[in-house]
Amino acid sequence: MKISTTRPLAILVRPRIYIGEGIAIGPGKIDLLRQIGHTRSIAAAARVLGVPYKRAWLLIVSLNEGFGQPVIETASGGKGGGGATLTTLGQQLVICYDALERRLNAEATQELEAIRRLAD
Amino acid sequence: MKISTTRPLAILVRPRIYIGEGIAIGPGKIDLLRQIGHTRSIAAAARVLGVPYKRAWLLIVSLNEGFGQPVIETASGGKGGGGATLTTLGQQLVICYDALERRLNAEATQELEAIRRLAD
Repeated sequence: MKISTTRPLAILVRPRIYIGEGIAIGPGKIDLLRQIGHTRSIAAAARVLGVPYKRAWLLIVSLNEGFGQPVIETASGGKGGGGATLTTLGQQLVICYDALERRLNAEATQELEAIRRLAD
Repeated sequence: MKISTTRPLAILVRPRIYIGEGIAIGPGKIDLLRQIGHTRSIAAAARVLGVPYKRAWLLIVSLNEGFGQPVIETASGGKGGGGATLTTLGQQLVICYDALERRLNAEATQELEAIRRLAD
């Protein structure tokens, strides 16, 4: 049993969503999309999140394949040397995921508190 | 864009819960605990879930360390050659997780439907 501290432990729930057989969306993919939106680069986003570039790239590919349409657009060359931007689908995924996450954390306080108490 | 089918895609949300700095509980750990409860064996549970034994064992260790107390008890030798059972904490984790999961899937229908529609 841990020694209880006066400050209760923070508890947070992050959703993993399964759609049909082919789509799984969890915090890793959403944080990656969000960082690509900020940095306009898969490589920079991967560095921020501390994941290998290849893994980041595969996560994006799995989203593209699952949805049957791309979640990011990449431009090559030109001013700034290319870069990546979220498609409308990619943007909507982040927005909808964030809305779901806020809802879950706001609504399930009783169930979350029951779990938090197990760690006291 | 995928071709819409007449049957809408199923959507399911499974929670990943973070408590303080040291505990992360997601569907993988909960399914493992549940299978250990059923099979009374880490090795058998790992086989059912298709994860390597070492990974299953490390998931259990991370739960034990996060909570500062064991989630399973193992007996060695004796009739049946030992085996693993869930501690009260391990049992409570599965029960509380399942309650949270049911609540999330029941409550967040509007947000989940918004995400499901992105896959249509």
